[in-house]
Amino acid sequence: MARIVQKFGGTSVADLNRIRNAAERVKRAVDAGDQVAVVVSAMAGETNRLVDLVRQASPLHDAREYDAVVASGEQVTSGLMAIVLQTMGIQARSFQGWQMPLKTDNAHSRARILEIDTTLMRQRMDEGVVAVCAGFQGVSNVGRITTLGRGGSDTSAVALAAALEADRCDIFTDVDGVYTCDPRIVTKARKLDRITYEEMLEMASLGAKVLQTRSVELAMNHRVRVQVLSSFEDKPGTLVVDEDEIMEHEVVSGIAYNRDEAKITLRRVADRPGVAAAIFGPLADAGINVDMIVQNVSADGETTDMTFTVGKADLDRVNALLKDKQATIGFGEVICDSGVVKVSIIGVGMRSHAGVAQKMFSTLAERGINIQVISTSEIKVSILIAEDYAELALRALHTAYGLDAIG
Amino acid sequence: MARIVQKFGGTSVADLNRIRNAAERVKRAVDAGDQVAVVVSAMAGETNRLVDLVRQASPLHDAREYDAVVASGEQVTSGLMAIVLQTMGIQARSFQGWQMPLKTDNAHSRARILEIDTTLMRQRMDEGVVAVCAGFQGVSNVGRITTLGRGGSDTSAVALAAALEADRCDIFTDVDGVYTCDPRIVTKARKLDRITYEEMLEMASLGAKVLQTRSVELAMNHRVRVQVLSSFEDKPGTLVVDEDEIMEHEVVSGIAYNRDEAKITLRRVADRPGVAAAIFGPLADAGINVDMIVQNVSADGETTDMTFTVGKADLDRVNALLKDKQATIGFGEVICDSGVVKVSIIGVGMRSHAGVAQKMFSTLAERGINIQVISTSEIKVSILIAEDYAELALRALHTAYGLDAIG
Repeated sequence: MARIVQKFGGTSVADLNRIRNAAERVKRAVDAGDQVAVVVSAMAGETNRLVDLVRQASPLHDAREYDAVVASGEQVTSGLMAIVLQTMGIQARSFQGWQMPLKTDNAHSRARILEIDTTLMRQRMDEGVVAVCAGFQGVSNVGRITTLGRGGSDTSAVALAAALEADRCDIFTDVDGVYTCDPRIVTKARKLDRITYEEMLEMASLGAKVLQTRSVELAMNHRVRVQVLSSFEDKPGTLVVDEDEIMEHEVVSGIAYNRDEAKITLRRVADRPGVAAAIFGPLADAGINVDMIVQNVSADGETTDMTFTVGKADLDRVNALLKDKQATIGFGEVICDSGVVKVSIIGVGMRSHAGVAQKMFSTLAERGINIQVISTSEIKVSILIAEDYAELALRALHTAYGLDAIG
Repeated sequence: MARIVQKFGGTSVADLNRIRNAAERVKRAVDAGDQVAVVVSAMAGETNRLVDLVRQASPLHDAREYDAVVASGEQVTSGLMAIVLQTMGIQARSFQGWQMPLKTDNAHSRARILEIDTTLMRQRMDEGVVAVCAGFQGVSNVGRITTLGRGGSDTSAVALAAALEADRCDIFTDVDGVYTCDPRIVTKARKLDRITYEEMLEMASLGAKVLQTRSVELAMNHRVRVQVLSSFEDKPGTLVVDEDEIMEHEVVSGIAYNRDEAKITLRRVADRPGVAAAIFGPLADAGINVDMIVQNVSADGETTDMTFTVGKADLDRVNALLKDKQATIGFGEVICDSGVVKVSIIGVGMRSHAGVAQKMFSTLAERGINIQVISTSEIKVSILIAEDYAELALRALHTAYGLDAIG
């Protein structure tokens, strides 16, 4: 007997038929003798509908009331799932965040989980009851409803798996696992049987949106074995596990890309101490996330060029902010380019292998693809190229690192 | 300064514009210096949508899960109302049933209120905060979400007014008060300024569906002054109050009717002790509500006729039940008639006036309307007539009792 958490996302509970389909997956685990806690998202589209109502009420709304309204979506699904399980002869009851309770801090609409009291839930699970938990929501120390931010149900599920000391946390979604690359672009992409937390984190933060980044961090910190699998097909997915659970690592496990960033270059920046702080301070104050940053050594000893990337959605604000501060910072001109794509190779294996980045550069050079910016971390190399070359680059790199599916 | 409860029904909060309109009514009370607790229903249509989802999940569903799903409708409205009030510069916060808490018994989907803890709410109201309460819902002693049954938000509002010792409970709805008769039939019907609890109870139970019967009982028991008024027009409504708050009573305050009953006659029933119990016992066991019952004295000393009314929806079941028990009960035949209407004159004044019923009978006789069944209570006379005569009877009685509006 194992104790498992099964999480079903919005598309997996979009209507009653899909809820029944999801319930079949729960039943199979129960029939196999497992203790099961289920975590459900709101029915697809429901959270958007509720958020829209709140925005109509006021663009600047009280986050506590936003949470009360938006959390109702998961409440509905949890009740429906419990009823459907009961029709299959399975004992089940719904748990709202405040009923467990799942305690969070007071940062409404983006609350962090402090503690999950699983006493009641364990009692019921020991009696053979499936606990159906409303994902995404919790309760603050003053008894208000909180939510964990968009995609927060993944985080609920992993946190619950940690609190219940579950053997596994299954994330049922509309894809059947984590791939070496986006299969819509690289037809030879392979589904990975296993991936490490660290790699998954890099993949997630790079736009391969299978799991919410935060849930992967949480899984890593609490060593929760996470499985990503399809709720529509009956086959194993990808296990996200600790590094030592994978015997032989590929040098590169996957290739990710992100089209949502724009490149900004400041020309002829005064080459003096504190200039980086003068540039990025105002951006940080405005809540703008800066990703890659590259500064070249000064050619003339007086000025240099500074290049960095921000989300495309922030581009206009960044441009305005910089022009506003041009005199203070001291630079010649701003050049914005949103026609770029970030491509990253990821793999824990590259820590013990030399020449991994070099293979990337030479592969792209052979195709005549110009690399604009390079940024590296311990298990990742990211480059910025013109977006027209995205597909070509991904396919070439996928082959070069030996990731192509055979046959 | 007064402390008041304002309740807004589903049509009064059907969309954001209507919620804003309702919030204006709250603002006016706040600006006048009143402490206000608001009770909201689900947005019009929302409860039906949720009930439908539950029924799709299973026709025979766990009432605890039904409650969890259906209570979400009021949760949404309470949050939206709080946000809209805040945009008007009014401090406001939402309270779910479990947050007050509003404690109920465990009779899920038709729970009864046991106690409302208003400590926190009073604190916040003393600080100038408008408490926006989700109507219709509460929490059981084991911490599960309960609901009070359809129309339960009226009951929530009156119970809250009692617990808060409020000066008044305003029920905002889509009609502007209680009328002497249905204005769609009797164009000369007048809006009543005041009506007693007892009269309102008879009106409500007779199908003048302005207030849920249960909420009127509760108001009567706790002497809560209830006002029924329109959320769309700015004018006083009808006050439902104690008898001693009305100086001069009309003999008849209002005339109600009900088209939802059917008449059943059992011919040649054995005239022996226990025969009534033999007839109505099986009906009670089947949960069928019997309204009027008339038994004539026996003409031949051996058999009699028994006539009674039930809801039209129950007619087929009653017919089947009686035929099933025909031998046990002992009667000749069953005659069913669903082409009837019940007309009632209501007024606390008739307690001290003679000849009230007689005026009813003579008025109808003058129009050639045959009375099939008569039933009386202390403040009400009800008759059953053929449904074709309903409008004629109502208009004639309205004039006869001096209720017609002048001019």
